[in-house]
Amino acid sequence: MLSLTIQAREGWARRGVLRVRGHEIDTPAFMPVGTQATVKSLTPAEVRETGAQIILNNAYHLYLRPGVELVERCGGLHRFQAWDGGILTDSGGYQIFSLSSLHKVAEEGLTFRSHIDGSEHFMSPEKAIEVQGRLGADIIMSFDQPIPWGATRPQTVEATERTHRWAARGRAAWNPETGQALFGIVQGGFEEDPRKLSAAELSALDFPGYAIGGLSVGEPKEVMWAMLDAVTPLLPEEKPRYLMGVGLPTDIVRAVLLGVDMFDCVLPTRMGRNGSAFTWAGRINLRNAQYEADTGPLDPRCPCAVCRTFSRAYLRHLLKAGEILALRSLTYHNLTLYQQVMAKIRENIEGGTYVEWAAGFLHTYRE
Amino acid sequence: MLSLTIQAREGWARRGVLRVRGHEIDTPAFMPVGTQATVKSLTPAEVRETGAQIILNNAYHLYLRPGVELVERCGGLHRFQAWDGGILTDSGGYQIFSLSSLHKVAEEGLTFRSHIDGSEHFMSPEKAIEVQGRLGADIIMSFDQPIPWGATRPQTVEATERTHRWAARGRAAWNPETGQALFGIVQGGFEEDPRKLSAAELSALDFPGYAIGGLSVGEPKEVMWAMLDAVTPLLPEEKPRYLMGVGLPTDIVRAVLLGVDMFDCVLPTRMGRNGSAFTWAGRINLRNAQYEADTGPLDPRCPCAVCRTFSRAYLRHLLKAGEILALRSLTYHNLTLYQQVMAKIRENIEGGTYVEWAAGFLHTYRE
Repeated sequence: MLSLTIQAREGWARRGVLRVRGHEIDTPAFMPVGTQATVKSLTPAEVRETGAQIILNNAYHLYLRPGVELVERCGGLHRFQAWDGGILTDSGGYQIFSLSSLHKVAEEGLTFRSHIDGSEHFMSPEKAIEVQGRLGADIIMSFDQPIPWGATRPQTVEATERTHRWAARGRAAWNPETGQALFGIVQGGFEEDPRKLSAAELSALDFPGYAIGGLSVGEPKEVMWAMLDAVTPLLPEEKPRYLMGVGLPTDIVRAVLLGVDMFDCVLPTRMGRNGSAFTWAGRINLRNAQYEADTGPLDPRCPCAVCRTFSRAYLRHLLKAGEILALRSLTYHNLTLYQQVMAKIRENIEGGTYVEWAAGFLHTYRE
Repeated sequence: MLSLTIQAREGWARRGVLRVRGHEIDTPAFMPVGTQATVKSLTPAEVRETGAQIILNNAYHLYLRPGVELVERCGGLHRFQAWDGGILTDSGGYQIFSLSSLHKVAEEGLTFRSHIDGSEHFMSPEKAIEVQGRLGADIIMSFDQPIPWGATRPQTVEATERTHRWAARGRAAWNPETGQALFGIVQGGFEEDPRKLSAAELSALDFPGYAIGGLSVGEPKEVMWAMLDAVTPLLPEEKPRYLMGVGLPTDIVRAVLLGVDMFDCVLPTRMGRNGSAFTWAGRINLRNAQYEADTGPLDPRCPCAVCRTFSRAYLRHLLKAGEILALRSLTYHNLTLYQQVMAKIRENIEGGTYVEWAAGFLHTYRE
């Protein structure tokens, strides 16, 4: 079963160790996104080298391709993708709403068409648990109904209440004896009342961990911070808190101040593939002409193999020439830098210097 | 200066060691193609792991992007791409004819438009030597005029004679004191007489090495073998012979029987990116449904990291999902397999068993 040992606190920030099915994960933790059972462009050995201890896979994508049965036949997600660290699967609700053409939203579940081949499928809270269970992740997520920025209050309340009923159904369908830990997902839109209600109702269901979902979907940053601020104090103190899909390094540093333990985000990988490199001084766009003849590394303080081997000038050439090595290199470096930020966060919470360090980081780091 | 020490012979096949500017290259050698100063999708460390001791870069591409000056400012091709093995640059004649829109063929040289931005450029035999010299390759190639399959006899003779005059001009422009070795390129089209004439005329110019160009451009395989058979006996025995742009493993095994020492080809990398894996039993297309649930490695005898880590089923999934890791993995495996074939070739020439081994390989290997 999942456990979170909190080793140090500073304000609301916590430094801990999450244990699940033999995996030990230092928190606050950043989980690279491996949507289709691969962190895009990297080998599992490289993902490990960046410092990652747990990755995120996406149940919606894997359910559609290659399918649950094939992953099972190949020994589950760990063996299939040759990753011996932790795996969390997202349940797929968000992707059904954002990627597939939705056929029907009903109390029973969602009927939708595959974004790959248009085939029709049905997903329910129970089936989401079954799919994730069979895929073999270590941490699995409740099936929820996301709420778009701009939803009306009645829409928000309706979707949030359905998410609660679905959470209860999923929890009942979950078999804790597998060792897989099920997280509930707090929704509630962009106002305090439904958010707080959602946190309270889900807490009452006693999940091994809690995700905060439906943020960073287009709302202003201050709305996101207000929602997070409203919700985290209501979540059980001894259980992990996972802020879904967030974010930039400064977002992570801020969210840790509010008591978040786990993060995932496509930005370091996706922006890397677009030519952006994260550095300790902020983000740079390597396509910019100023790096044309820059023989220095992406970041002078970064110990990664890319920074030890390649110049900005060479990486820029690769990028302009459309070469895969550019995408790999920027992805690897960005994930390394993210993990170095996480290590600094943990180190400073341990030392009781986090608030001070975070202030300095937020002051000097340029998004 | 370049030297070739021939350590063993069997028939016309030779096993040797090529030394150039501190690099030692076991021959027969296969050179992976790194057109734009990167063997597509791989790091230089991985290229080394596959067993490669020398790679090919393309002077035409690098002259256009990132440009000679930038490569020089970054310390030359070796430092620029962080590759400490040998580098051979192709002069660019072939690419000017095949990729750019050609403006004018004149005795002085070629006026052409960049395939990247349409800008106009001029390349002469002297400039090709200068460009390659400044790029800093270890082995550089004469500037030649390729002859398409289907050319008339007068076209063939005209282009071949120009190639000879250009070879002499390039040789005069070359500074041997750089340690860079200049190879002449035998042309002569697809008939014996002009081919033999070309071999004889170029031999008289006393280059450090000889390339056989203009083959594998669409002509029937038997024409290629006839041309190679006609040419190799005329080339200086003690100098390396490089068959440009060839080929499949069976082509290489056959060409070694005719006395060829060096090869380059895009097939293992390009076909890898298209989903083909080379194995000891032949080539397989991983997109084929028969590999859908195949939990075995690409090749059970291959020691590469891909075969030790990933199943065919997983690689097929990555390929179908359009994931970069599939392209990397197939490229890495294919180049490893090619280098293993080269090692077997050398081992069998040393042991005096090459003809027998080659017969067995050509019998069992399925293209």
